[in-house]
Amino acid sequence: MDEVVSLCKRRGFVFQSSEIYNGFSGFFDYGPLGAELKRNIKDRWWREFVQGRSDVVGLDASIISSPKVWEASGHVEQFTDPMVDCRETKLRFRADQLFYSPVKMEGGGDVLCHVCVQEDSEDNMAAAAKAQAKKILKKAGTPLGQNAKLDPFQFKDLTQAEEEELAVIPSPASLLPTLTAPRDFNLMFETSVGAAADASAAAYLRPETAQAIFVNFKNAQSTGRMKVPFGVAQVGKAFRNEVTPRNFIFRSREFEQMEIEYFIPPGDDVWQPFHEEWLASAKKFLLGIGLREDLMGLDVHAPGGLAHYARACTDITFRFPFGVSELMGVAARGSYDLEQHAKASGKSMEYFDDETKTKYVPHVIEPSLGVDRLFLALICSAYAEDEVGGEKRNYLRFHPSVAPVKASVLPLLKNKPELVEVAAKLHEELKKRWNVEYDAAGAVGRRYRRADEIGTPFCITVDFDTLEDKCVTIRDRDTTEQRRVPLDEVAAVLQKEIDGF
Amino acid sequence: MDEVVSLCKRRGFVFQSSEIYNGFSGFFDYGPLGAELKRNIKDRWWREFVQGRSDVVGLDASIISSPKVWEASGHVEQFTDPMVDCRETKLRFRADQLFYSPVKMEGGGDVLCHVCVQEDSEDNMAAAAKAQAKKILKKAGTPLGQNAKLDPFQFKDLTQAEEEELAVIPSPASLLPTLTAPRDFNLMFETSVGAAADASAAAYLRPETAQAIFVNFKNAQSTGRMKVPFGVAQVGKAFRNEVTPRNFIFRSREFEQMEIEYFIPPGDDVWQPFHEEWLASAKKFLLGIGLREDLMGLDVHAPGGLAHYARACTDITFRFPFGVSELMGVAARGSYDLEQHAKASGKSMEYFDDETKTKYVPHVIEPSLGVDRLFLALICSAYAEDEVGGEKRNYLRFHPSVAPVKASVLPLLKNKPELVEVAAKLHEELKKRWNVEYDAAGAVGRRYRRADEIGTPFCITVDFDTLEDKCVTIRDRDTTEQRRVPLDEVAAVLQKEIDGF
Repeated sequence: MDEVVSLCKRRGFVFQSSEIYNGFSGFFDYGPLGAELKRNIKDRWWREFVQGRSDVVGLDASIISSPKVWEASGHVEQFTDPMVDCRETKLRFRADQLFYSPVKMEGGGDVLCHVCVQEDSEDNMAAAAKAQAKKILKKAGTPLGQNAKLDPFQFKDLTQAEEEELAVIPSPASLLPTLTAPRDFNLMFETSVGAAADASAAAYLRPETAQAIFVNFKNAQSTGRMKVPFGVAQVGKAFRNEVTPRNFIFRSREFEQMEIEYFIPPGDDVWQPFHEEWLASAKKFLLGIGLREDLMGLDVHAPGGLAHYARACTDITFRFPFGVSELMGVAARGSYDLEQHAKASGKSMEYFDDETKTKYVPHVIEPSLGVDRLFLALICSAYAEDEVGGEKRNYLRFHPSVAPVKASVLPLLKNKPELVEVAAKLHEELKKRWNVEYDAAGAVGRRYRRADEIGTPFCITVDFDTLEDKCVTIRDRDTTEQRRVPLDEVAAVLQKEIDGF
Repeated sequence: MDEVVSLCKRRGFVFQSSEIYNGFSGFFDYGPLGAELKRNIKDRWWREFVQGRSDVVGLDASIISSPKVWEASGHVEQFTDPMVDCRETKLRFRADQLFYSPVKMEGGGDVLCHVCVQEDSEDNMAAAAKAQAKKILKKAGTPLGQNAKLDPFQFKDLTQAEEEELAVIPSPASLLPTLTAPRDFNLMFETSVGAAADASAAAYLRPETAQAIFVNFKNAQSTGRMKVPFGVAQVGKAFRNEVTPRNFIFRSREFEQMEIEYFIPPGDDVWQPFHEEWLASAKKFLLGIGLREDLMGLDVHAPGGLAHYARACTDITFRFPFGVSELMGVAARGSYDLEQHAKASGKSMEYFDDETKTKYVPHVIEPSLGVDRLFLALICSAYAEDEVGGEKRNYLRFHPSVAPVKASVLPLLKNKPELVEVAAKLHEELKKRWNVEYDAAGAVGRRYRRADEIGTPFCITVDFDTLEDKCVTIRDRDTTEQRRVPLDEVAAVLQKEIDGF
């Protein structure tokens, strides 16, 4: 993971936000290459699911909306994480990420003390707990002997602690029992809208893009002249005040989502084929932009683990360097959200079905994908190493459709005006269509490497033969194979590779 | 203006945010067509100024950043509007948008009372003030006679009121002297980041995208291997807690900016040609996407009206239905921002110029354009009425490059499978490239009108001749002229019109 973070910074994909001010936890800035990659991801998604489908329309709603939206959706009350404070150090922890255990000598006996450590692998937690136990017992004047063996720890997370246990469980920060009882912490960022700073003006930064689609259901349906089944798609920022942001851009406080609410008729036997179809479409899209299939997986949520209004949820997972985690979810959410907004607003969310002559509140299938997570998964998928001409090569195997730079145009020599002229003209022409670089500095081999490192799929070399045969050499990044292509066919060749048409 | 707002709502361009909850002042949602138009605007801008130029790279920074950024930039202290409260009604006003005057009978005499009205045209303000004077004097038991003539009002805005005047100036809401003294109100939305809700966690939603570029100057320059002069471009949301949002999406609380900081060498005689060049490029871009030249103007800020660090600022204005207002600004800002961040962060913002072997903090030219304002200006530019076949036609003359729907494919008859098959296939092919509709319902004339109304530039009709000659008819929205084009040339013909290549 460190390697990925370092590559992202070094090549201008992702910087820590406010870096010159020593950063700001949970926020990130996308640099020159990152901005292009992110743009390409969003563009491809929109092309696939909005432009490419006649049954989906787009929406671009505001990040801040009426607080009533979040009251009706249940977020004001329920969008919380359990949290504990250390009264001594003022540090804060997610209660479900702290694990405590009594400490006993091997073979049983009295409880010597309690320990409390942060979530990690089983082994790491055991090691941390043992070290903590030693410190605590030493401080208490009853140090453990050099070769003392402890009973295996019985870890439970802090949300399961009884009140009397909380009185003896140490804070991992102070090693004293200074933790407060867990309490709910709302993850929505709150702000105040309008000049009057009283409670009536409280508003929230949206923690998801989905609700804006629900409240605009009627508007989108009627102005788009849509018939159920149909979808409304949105790409945009969302914000969550994570207690412990982590894993680089995987769990940050400001992120971007690409979500669709696909409205379908109600009924117990209706949703399943739609759910499967969307799962298949999502997978096809992800593979199409270059996600490595061998790193992808499925996580079908057990019925017991679903929200009460959900019928099913399947995650597409990805093996990130820090472990297998959710990349996107496809949920069958019933009609809960529309019903909630109908109730709270007093406005009907019913749809009249022309064909069946029935009125109903549609159910939804919700494919929801995080831009930043996909960004990270694409970098991980692209990260590659091989040998070229006997030398080790580190490069990025981006699919041409998402590669930040599509091609690099190289005049063989930079001091030959006749080569430069042809190369510059080709560069001008290609730049109208894509992000294409011009690189004249250094040996061609070095320029190839520079392009490989940032994942540019094609290097186009203008050489002396070009002046005769009006052809250029296109080198493929992955195979390093070269082919000779007429100058006036270069754009079409690239288009085929980038867009597939 | 009401017509434009109504059209935007009716056709699915723009909805009031949280409409089912009776709206949320200053926030807007872009519907199916609006989302496409907005996307096209941003895409064209990026293509023109980032992809199309070798001297500009992109950036996509977070909306929330370290509060130190806004302390250093001066926003925490100075990004304010003067505001007064009505103690009686709890309403709030911009002090510089309230105008007060003493009231006297024609020809002079004692001051009868004071009036205070909201900013408007001279005539409207005089009428409102007269009506207010009548009410106040009636309430005081000294009503004005039926034909009483008043002296002309001497309006001054409330920031100019002396303390003793404030004691007698009425609130426009209560008609009693219940206004507080004007005080500065910071326009940045504040929120709290991290689990601890103490002052150290205060953060702001960015009120402009520019500062993120300044704090990333070094990162962008080094990873993009850029040499001065070069620019960093960013598109993204910004937020201002306007006391009185108004004029639809022109002045809203959440909006989107497209900004470039173009870094240049320092020196009194250096910036002017760059400033002129950027002004010309901006104008060319705006005309290229269809902004009406006859509605555009220039507003050169007088040197006295500039911020102390600015050398020049020229606005490109647009004649909106509510008046001539700023559409975009091109400012020469010196090195103020970089210097401020260097000072506050202790990090050098110097650039070493390879050619001149000198070190300096660059100056900047800042072309700054509002997406939502441009959106509104494009709708206003496109709004047209003419007569076709003796009937009045309302349509939108969008330039093909920004039109939300690029083309509509129409099979002449929807119950002829041979026509439908060809039309559907063409639609499939075109949809890969652009947002293209398929419309088979109703008479062709009615379908043309439907396309015209939403500004679709091309209608492509598949008729019986198509089955013979493999050609379709492309109808031009503006001229209503039709031309016959071979099926396999349709994509190229559209591309020429949309992209110009």
